[in-house]
Amino acid sequence: MTLLYHTPLSPEAQSELGIAPPAPLAMADQVRFSELDALCHVNNAVYLQWFERLRVKYTQICGLSRNLGGETGPRIVIRSGTIHYIQEMLMDEKYVVTCGCAAFRNTSFTLHQELWSDGQKRATFDCVLVLLRQDGSGRYPIPEAVRDRFMRVDGAQPEA
Amino acid sequence: MTLLYHTPLSPEAQSELGIAPPAPLAMADQVRFSELDALCHVNNAVYLQWFERLRVKYTQICGLSRNLGGETGPRIVIRSGTIHYIQEMLMDEKYVVTCGCAAFRNTSFTLHQELWSDGQKRATFDCVLVLLRQDGSGRYPIPEAVRDRFMRVDGAQPEA
Amino acid sequence: MTLLYHTPLSPEAQSELGIAPPAPLAMADQVRFSELDALCHVNNAVYLQWFERLRVKYTQICGLSRNLGGETGPRIVIRSGTIHYIQEMLMDEKYVVTCGCAAFRNTSFTLHQELWSDGQKRATFDCVLVLLRQDGSGRYPIPEAVRDRFMRVDGAQPEA
Amino acid sequence: MTLLYHTPLSPEAQSELGIAPPAPLAMADQVRFSELDALCHVNNAVYLQWFERLRVKYTQICGLSRNLGGETGPRIVIRSGTIHYIQEMLMDEKYVVTCGCAAFRNTSFTLHQELWSDGQKRATFDCVLVLLRQDGSGRYPIPEAVRDRFMRVDGAQPEA
Repeated sequence: MTLLYHTPLSPEAQSELGIAPPAPLAMADQVRFSELDALCHVNNAVYLQWFERLRVKYTQICGLSRNLGGETGPRIVIRSGTIHYIQEMLMDEKYVVTCGCAAFRNTSFTLHQELWSDGQKRATFDCVLVLLRQDGSGRYPIPEAVRDRFMRVDGAQPEA
Repeated sequence: MTLLYHTPLSPEAQSELGIAPPAPLAMADQVRFSELDALCHVNNAVYLQWFERLRVKYTQICGLSRNLGGETGPRIVIRSGTIHYIQEMLMDEKYVVTCGCAAFRNTSFTLHQELWSDGQKRATFDCVLVLLRQDGSGRYPIPEAVRDRFMRVDGAQPEA
Repeated sequence: MTLLYHTPLSPEAQSELGIAPPAPLAMADQVRFSELDALCHVNNAVYLQWFERLRVKYTQICGLSRNLGGETGPRIVIRSGTIHYIQEMLMDEKYVVTCGCAAFRNTSFTLHQELWSDGQKRATFDCVLVLLRQDGSGRYPIPEAVRDRFMRVDGAQPEA
Repeated sequence: MTLLYHTPLSPEAQSELGIAPPAPLAMADQVRFSELDALCHVNNAVYLQWFERLRVKYTQICGLSRNLGGETGPRIVIRSGTIHYIQEMLMDEKYVVTCGCAAFRNTSFTLHQELWSDGQKRATFDCVLVLLRQDGSGRYPIPEAVRDRFMRVDGAQPEA
């Protein structure tokens, strides 16, 4: 089967790769030489780059676009995260990173992310993101359309 | 005050820098241009590199030396970690990373790490490390001398 | 047109992408968030990671496989390199990196590499690689089959 | 001798470290775990980060400050560079990176950089930087005070 890189994978494509249950967003990539450390496996910090890359894509798709010099929209800040390393990643391995919203409040939300390779879950990352006003004046409420999407597409629940 | 980089800081030096309480191991460094991302602050994945660097030093000091091609001693693997981002880090800022053992079991232990800059706690990282035999045959028990050190120097407690 | 990532591109596929002349080896990838620096373009050091990644693949294909812990074969060392930055790379841009042998001597060879994106040459890198014996006892001669391949496939010339 | 990190080293301090001749700017640092690759030495791309870090400092000292979001001053772009790798760098090694202007034209200049460790020259990097107007309207002439400094402090020569 040809693996489609750098492109959102359909639920069917995710299922064929053994990713269960399918995630709202999933994209494939491949381990590079520069990501290995002196122990010849992917360095623990590189996982955070992979997860972040998909979060950037996810917030763009949700309409919370991370502004790189732009003027409007919230500033999206990572507040905390918990990573579990299940099995190491090696040179040239193909992998899929997933992202979906697990829960949300007025100005923050929780994402659940997974890393899959060769039909195995290799790592998970759960993090809390906070929306801030670009001018630093305080929190930025999650827009109604985004809250709807979190519930409808991702099955996320609002928290008190 | 001249900040001593790349050298373990005494409890007194840590106190002068506002680090309270002092940690079993603390070393200073400075933010570099290559650590900034497109948002002009230190990227969230870079924090894990900083914390890892001090963990490598810490396990060397403890006598659990991470072997880079060597034959003896355990293989030290990170199992999980939780990071809290408290305040962003900017270009050229000086910082101190700390490390100490919070608790341990037979073949694993928990480290508590902090990032300090300008008298403020900027981030914390709590992680679980596991010791494995180099030949892959299973877990590697924490040596008695290391357990003693965890209790005596770091004030860590054994867990059931 | 669907761009095939992480896979050697045929001369025809290279031509369709505007890469002229086609290179002995060419593979596609996409700019990631973590590769941008504080100026919001791909950092100058990241180009060297991209070029290195394709060199590793190239030496594997040539049968000069970079050994990561293995026992046989030469150690491949980069001696020098010259990079030209022609046009900056931005977030999410798709690109192709190429690699081919330009010339060779008894124990060293010169590679010419290019970076293409959106039909434009964005950067070039010319470097000299040296083969060393794994035991550090001196230079390692380029095997006859590899020399033949350099001439036959890449059109490279032996130098005095 | 205590090595002073992250601070410009005097010509005398450079001489004591075996750096000959002393450079207009030199700063010390130490190899980190995250800079090693799967071959257990510093990766070839990391050298460019080290050199870049000192160039940023150098242009700040020269008054050509790299603007990170600021409004005035030129945009400084690297046009090309040639690196020579002389001897590999290993874990925890202390090193000094140098920077000085070798020659200049109206809107561009050449920097010569060296990497020293343990009294040995480990690598050199020669690069051409170009000044551009922030609004993209063309080249930005090197200010008279900077040209004077290039000649007076660095001994650089103007080129036709």
